[in-house]
Amino acid sequence: MQTADYQLIIIGGGPAGLTAGLYAARARLRCLLVEKGALGGQVLTTDWIDNYPGFIEGISGFELVEKMTSHAARFELETMIANVSSVDLQEKIKILHLENGKPLSAQSIIICTGGSPGKLNIPGEKDFTGRGVSYCATCDAPFYKDQEIAVVGGGNTAIQEAVHLAKFARKVTVIHRREELRATQIVQEKAFANNKIEFIFNAEVTEIQGGENGVQHLVLAHKDGTESILEVTGIFILIGVDPNNELLPMESLEKDTYGFIVTDTEMRTSLPGVFAAGDIRSKNFRQVVNAAGEGATAELSAEHFLANL
Amino acid sequence: MQTADYQLIIIGGGPAGLTAGLYAARARLRCLLVEKGALGGQVLTTDWIDNYPGFIEGISGFELVEKMTSHAARFELETMIANVSSVDLQEKIKILHLENGKPLSAQSIIICTGGSPGKLNIPGEKDFTGRGVSYCATCDAPFYKDQEIAVVGGGNTAIQEAVHLAKFARKVTVIHRREELRATQIVQEKAFANNKIEFIFNAEVTEIQGGENGVQHLVLAHKDGTESILEVTGIFILIGVDPNNELLPMESLEKDTYGFIVTDTEMRTSLPGVFAAGDIRSKNFRQVVNAAGEGATAELSAEHFLANL
Repeated sequence: MQTADYQLIIIGGGPAGLTAGLYAARARLRCLLVEKGALGGQVLTTDWIDNYPGFIEGISGFELVEKMTSHAARFELETMIANVSSVDLQEKIKILHLENGKPLSAQSIIICTGGSPGKLNIPGEKDFTGRGVSYCATCDAPFYKDQEIAVVGGGNTAIQEAVHLAKFARKVTVIHRREELRATQIVQEKAFANNKIEFIFNAEVTEIQGGENGVQHLVLAHKDGTESILEVTGIFILIGVDPNNELLPMESLEKDTYGFIVTDTEMRTSLPGVFAAGDIRSKNFRQVVNAAGEGATAELSAEHFLANL
Repeated sequence: MQTADYQLIIIGGGPAGLTAGLYAARARLRCLLVEKGALGGQVLTTDWIDNYPGFIEGISGFELVEKMTSHAARFELETMIANVSSVDLQEKIKILHLENGKPLSAQSIIICTGGSPGKLNIPGEKDFTGRGVSYCATCDAPFYKDQEIAVVGGGNTAIQEAVHLAKFARKVTVIHRREELRATQIVQEKAFANNKIEFIFNAEVTEIQGGENGVQHLVLAHKDGTESILEVTGIFILIGVDPNNELLPMESLEKDTYGFIVTDTEMRTSLPGVFAAGDIRSKNFRQVVNAAGEGATAELSAEHFLANL
């Protein structure tokens, strides 16, 4: 067996990476988790997680991440805050190049770099995230019972989620910058047939305004040059998710057309010894609990890979 | 759209089924979860779960199931305790036939009937389960630090886990009823090279004995007709997992050679509108957290399926 600094390096410290790390540390692998920011990833900025099974009344993203981090720390998972500038994944020994510090080597890698929801990048968006601005209808729909809300987007996810949101909200206004929706016909028809859902086409949201209790209204710019105000207490921005794949090799690792990593059901990528879990994977549904589950599966697949080296 | 009693019926109330149910109830689907015994499934009899992320010090199986059940109940998930005698899955409307009561119909089904670890069916096995008898090395290995333990089995899982257990235990004795192991060569070599691992071939465990603190020793029957005693505080029975697939149609639903249901990464089976999650799936690693994650994915896939009907 060739020598390497670690048996396993996990890139990314969200729920997928932390769960993989918990499993690896508990299995006594020589393992390192590298995270560029703070442990927790995107969940850290999630106000309230209502559907991570076991936390009956829900839990704040911050607290859940703190628990997952402490859980992994209990088994003495080694972690490092560092920027990975590139990775060599094709050889038997995988190499991580850091922006500062010497390269690290490992026999196997789990990529958990996550994804970033498409942003509007408009005033108020960041300020009200978690207080009226949401990027996940599955996560947050029940918080908007009997309220008036907006959905931004025109694709399948946006329109399907508008129908979902209409089960809770009093009124859902879909705002789409084009003349017609991109969603498939059947999904469109259901939305058009729902009398709680209204549509504003040829318009963009240019500002989100509100007060201490969160979002109060949106400023819309219409294609004809006019402006209008829409009163809502919530805005769901559903314009896609971008993969955090900047550091991944473009050619050798199989990805889908959007740049997410393709794996099989055991979280194996197209490269031997390289696994992926969580939001960076090519998949339909991005949730904390399936990220965690995939992290466990990826780590056990890595252990199996190492046992057969 | 054809009418059915439910939009979704979930069969089985372990972590996969309960998570699917939590998601479905929270999404306000007309959904029913049918469980034949008590909610919780196999986890209910799991003494201590140390690696479900977020419960830092671990949690008893009983308590985790109670939390998951309460969590789903918070969103008013409808559940029913009933024996399903058969299911018709091929038509657009799926039918569940119950042993007692009228048939139930649904537009989609998630199968979460789980698996059962292969048992020795010997005296003491049941009494000491969770107190020295284990069916999962990943789950329980760290509890046997510096102890002497036994592994029963000769396949890949058994031998790979023997090596894993040797990281914790002082001594691991592999007991195999045949003359040689079935595990692949490289896995065998690692076990033979490990000086903490000993082997007893051509022998079967006929009884597990112990006291108030758990397992104390095993009675072995050797092929030559002799008997012996092996002093251990733990015995890992790793002779495979059987799918709980009695009620599933044998022809129409794709299964692997062991009878587990084959799904894609989105938990879709070979039949439209039929999904599977948890231990009943064809997969390498069976853990509470990946069962839960798969339950969430399966439910979201079912919602997507329903939205496009």
